[in-house]
Amino acid sequence: MSQTIGFIGLGNMGLPMAEQLLKAGYTVRAFDVSESILQAASELGAIVTRSIGEAAQGASVVVTMLPAGRHVRSVYLEPGGLIETAAPGTLLIDSSTIDVDTSRMVGSAAVDAGLEMIDAPVTGGVMAARIGKLNFIVGGTEASFKRAEAILSVMGKSVLYAGAQGSGIGVKICNNMCLGVSMIAAAETLMLAKRLNLDIKRTYEIINQASGQNWALSNYSPLPDLIDGVPSNNGYKPGFTAGMMRKDLRLAMDAVSSVDASAPMGAQALAVYSLFCANGDAQTDYSGISKLVGGDAWDYPFDPGK
Amino acid sequence: MSQTIGFIGLGNMGLPMAEQLLKAGYTVRAFDVSESILQAASELGAIVTRSIGEAAQGASVVVTMLPAGRHVRSVYLEPGGLIETAAPGTLLIDSSTIDVDTSRMVGSAAVDAGLEMIDAPVTGGVMAARIGKLNFIVGGTEASFKRAEAILSVMGKSVLYAGAQGSGIGVKICNNMCLGVSMIAAAETLMLAKRLNLDIKRTYEIINQASGQNWALSNYSPLPDLIDGVPSNNGYKPGFTAGMMRKDLRLAMDAVSSVDASAPMGAQALAVYSLFCANGDAQTDYSGISKLVGGDAWDYPFDPGK
Amino acid sequence: MSQTIGFIGLGNMGLPMAEQLLKAGYTVRAFDVSESILQAASELGAIVTRSIGEAAQGASVVVTMLPAGRHVRSVYLEPGGLIETAAPGTLLIDSSTIDVDTSRMVGSAAVDAGLEMIDAPVTGGVMAARIGKLNFIVGGTEASFKRAEAILSVMGKSVLYAGAQGSGIGVKICNNMCLGVSMIAAAETLMLAKRLNLDIKRTYEIINQASGQNWALSNYSPLPDLIDGVPSNNGYKPGFTAGMMRKDLRLAMDAVSSVDASAPMGAQALAVYSLFCANGDAQTDYSGISKLVGGDAWDYPFDPGK
Amino acid sequence: MSQTIGFIGLGNMGLPMAEQLLKAGYTVRAFDVSESILQAASELGAIVTRSIGEAAQGASVVVTMLPAGRHVRSVYLEPGGLIETAAPGTLLIDSSTIDVDTSRMVGSAAVDAGLEMIDAPVTGGVMAARIGKLNFIVGGTEASFKRAEAILSVMGKSVLYAGAQGSGIGVKICNNMCLGVSMIAAAETLMLAKRLNLDIKRTYEIINQASGQNWALSNYSPLPDLIDGVPSNNGYKPGFTAGMMRKDLRLAMDAVSSVDASAPMGAQALAVYSLFCANGDAQTDYSGISKLVGGDAWDYPFDPGK
Repeated sequence: MSQTIGFIGLGNMGLPMAEQLLKAGYTVRAFDVSESILQAASELGAIVTRSIGEAAQGASVVVTMLPAGRHVRSVYLEPGGLIETAAPGTLLIDSSTIDVDTSRMVGSAAVDAGLEMIDAPVTGGVMAARIGKLNFIVGGTEASFKRAEAILSVMGKSVLYAGAQGSGIGVKICNNMCLGVSMIAAAETLMLAKRLNLDIKRTYEIINQASGQNWALSNYSPLPDLIDGVPSNNGYKPGFTAGMMRKDLRLAMDAVSSVDASAPMGAQALAVYSLFCANGDAQTDYSGISKLVGGDAWDYPFDPGK
Repeated sequence: MSQTIGFIGLGNMGLPMAEQLLKAGYTVRAFDVSESILQAASELGAIVTRSIGEAAQGASVVVTMLPAGRHVRSVYLEPGGLIETAAPGTLLIDSSTIDVDTSRMVGSAAVDAGLEMIDAPVTGGVMAARIGKLNFIVGGTEASFKRAEAILSVMGKSVLYAGAQGSGIGVKICNNMCLGVSMIAAAETLMLAKRLNLDIKRTYEIINQASGQNWALSNYSPLPDLIDGVPSNNGYKPGFTAGMMRKDLRLAMDAVSSVDASAPMGAQALAVYSLFCANGDAQTDYSGISKLVGGDAWDYPFDPGK
Repeated sequence: MSQTIGFIGLGNMGLPMAEQLLKAGYTVRAFDVSESILQAASELGAIVTRSIGEAAQGASVVVTMLPAGRHVRSVYLEPGGLIETAAPGTLLIDSSTIDVDTSRMVGSAAVDAGLEMIDAPVTGGVMAARIGKLNFIVGGTEASFKRAEAILSVMGKSVLYAGAQGSGIGVKICNNMCLGVSMIAAAETLMLAKRLNLDIKRTYEIINQASGQNWALSNYSPLPDLIDGVPSNNGYKPGFTAGMMRKDLRLAMDAVSSVDASAPMGAQALAVYSLFCANGDAQTDYSGISKLVGGDAWDYPFDPGK
Repeated sequence: MSQTIGFIGLGNMGLPMAEQLLKAGYTVRAFDVSESILQAASELGAIVTRSIGEAAQGASVVVTMLPAGRHVRSVYLEPGGLIETAAPGTLLIDSSTIDVDTSRMVGSAAVDAGLEMIDAPVTGGVMAARIGKLNFIVGGTEASFKRAEAILSVMGKSVLYAGAQGSGIGVKICNNMCLGVSMIAAAETLMLAKRLNLDIKRTYEIINQASGQNWALSNYSPLPDLIDGVPSNNGYKPGFTAGMMRKDLRLAMDAVSSVDASAPMGAQALAVYSLFCANGDAQTDYSGISKLVGGDAWDYPFDPGK
């Protein structure tokens, strides 16, 4: 008999994640507030349930994939929530991208109640979720990590251990703050090169091998026709939207505030994405920030003779 | 008989570059405004000259390595300068890191006067210069590039072609703007992780393999004890100073102004390095920016049980 | 018989505010979680109570002065809290500086429960509280505003009506965001003048009459010896600390996030105050930001002959 | 017989300034590189001249109003320029807004040549120039200042003494840096209030009387319908364009670089105006920055019942 996994929150990310578990032969007990989402889960083979407690029933593991900290607090902490209804020893896996404080507080409450909990946020987005190629960054005890590894490996191509509970979300937020900065830096660097009438392809190749290199430049070029398979080649159809990057940068700046840190580049990245989104581009891929920083240079021709 | 190369400007960078040429068997005619520098060049085997014109005499190639645009304008354009005194067909190689406008203007004047000119700024710093491992980024005609390649290869481990004259300096400025942003981003990301009581080594390893990666993080970690051979392990003894990074960011922002570009991350990087230098750290290695953004978290212990 | 006012939260600000009410002849029923604070209130003539409900008993008006949104949520919304225990028709006045969302949510809950509520945050700080010279910015119905006016006038020199409930806190946050920006701008402008060897007194007088003027420059000069009675003349002894300004800027940026706004100058002000506080100056007066932006120019002498 | 004044540079600003001198009865000897401008000056009663030297001939005072530092260097320092051709003891008044370094260098050269020189940049723009209501900020000796006062008073409503030569331009640059910051801060503050559904008129009135006040808010509101006679009421028709503010902020950041200062708010203001101009708004009034920071909230209705 297959192992039973509760799954709460089957939206854009959660549904394809649950689908991977079903394909791998797990029994999935699904719960979501949306009837149409439950219907979709049912069509994929999940058992539809009508409450958090019902989803957790008979499950040795429960996965949650929720939009924000307040949903996580509600699903875990409220009467009828996971901490109240899950059987002792259940492993709770929260893959939501939320604030560190909530993650640590909920994890601590779960342990106090005799449960195990890890935070296991993902990178890679909807496309990666659909093909089981997410990256999980996991916080929790090493024992819990080992217990979760097989299940997470069904949904992801990499499962990395970050440290104590809360560390998964902590490292993800740090990573994405750095990424938000890198993407704008890559965009403004290439657009400056364009205005300077430099040969963009040569500029790109040189910087990509030199000290100005960053992941966004190398793997997710914000200018088109430099590398294959990126949103900039396709009118900045997302991918990962500018609005999602803004959300992650807000989480980062919340973390900065919560520990009295300072992060002037992260703050600037949030300011620039906020301008971009407030001017109508929240649904554009986040690499489209080159449109804002590039401005009217967007269609400047390169004149090799100049 | 060996080829004769004029060399003008033999400071911290120029002297070890000339030394490589001498070691490779070239005849070097040296000129500098400093008597003690000329003395040092003489001891390495260079022929000491007393004017720009004398240094250029009989040389098929002249290399210049000067501190700023105004020195380049003076050495090339003034009466008695290179453009007036170099023999027709001489190849002029300017390795100074200066503004794009000056580089293009001087290059254009040289060509008008029947000379060849390339801009060939370097990355890698004094240590690389001493062992002939600089990286040259070259702007000029492809013919001039090919003509310069053998000589530059004596002083550098890589010689990259960037495009028309001025492109070497243009690409270097773009690269270093992106690098300045990356270094601060790496520092504030790791210091945020420290304040969040994350495991720094694990955080570093994960981000370094993920989308938050950049060159500064991977190769020049601003926090100690993460990788070998970097100034952060050695009290931020430079290396490349914060003052030098500030200079390069100023050149970048000058370029931004000159072509009506916008570069909010580059502007922020300059603002942060300006704060750092104005508070007494101009001579600290540029990776020491972690001291400013880290603040009083610098000595926070990591508590794995928290 | 005098009117009875409940007063919850008698810290640095609340205690002197309650003292003004006592001096004006009101009966004050005080509650605080700190025993020593209650003792101090008792010595000023307040009736000490042991719970929120007891403080509200027999009071037609209850004033709260609490540190943060979570305390306000707790005092108003939890079982035994104000909304449960206050008599129908009681006027609740929250003078805490908190986030707009909490203020609006609590106000709405109060009205639903048959109570009246205004938010009435203050400006002016502890010194103003001690002499009854605070400024109140009030949000609520006009009827509630009129009902509160007499009491607030006892504690403040100005009582301004900002609009619907939540508007008092909203306007205060907007005001203080603008102030945080102004203070840094004033500091960096004067420190630039100092480095340029301009006559600071003349520079100050001219800008103060010209388009560069702002309130911080005119009334709270971040450089000493320009106007009387400001912390810069007294080693930046607060006054209003840098840490408090950071708190208000965090509230502002939370508000920006909550409504998808963009505020690049406010974001930068928070980044700069975060650097300042993280480097050990959270308890310095907020005008002391001139130390960070001024750096080593602090003691530059003015040389009128240069 | 009337006093003769040379006037060099009669563009948008220079022509109406010269007109005021003519109206006041001065003889004006005009020189400009544009034939049509000289024609216009002639129609106003000026004597047209064909060189710098001819304009200076017989003049006890020469006024220059030029676009940038390089024009000032050229007009004053080149062969046939003012310093060579003006009669000993001539008072040179440079009203151009240029960099401090050029102003000081040219002033020093003039004094060395036996001339008197003041820098006297203006604020107030073309409209003020047309009605003789400019504000002059003057750098030079007090004797030169007194000598210039009568003439400047013909063109301006205020003539302020800032200190030694170069101080006029220094103070103006400091002032305008602070103004650029203030305008964006005013815009983002009001647009945040709008998104928070605050009553904008009340918000404006309260902040304008409180610590968030600045000159831009009080006198040049970036949102329409708050005060009379400002470009925001008129579709942001300039006035003083965003491009001109960008130019002044560039001069400010050049000054910051030249003396190793730090000005994070000024840097941010330049970054924001650069984004605005690069996206097609260089000719919009600088108060139109509210369009960029306001984004899609521009037409949000105020709902007093919310």
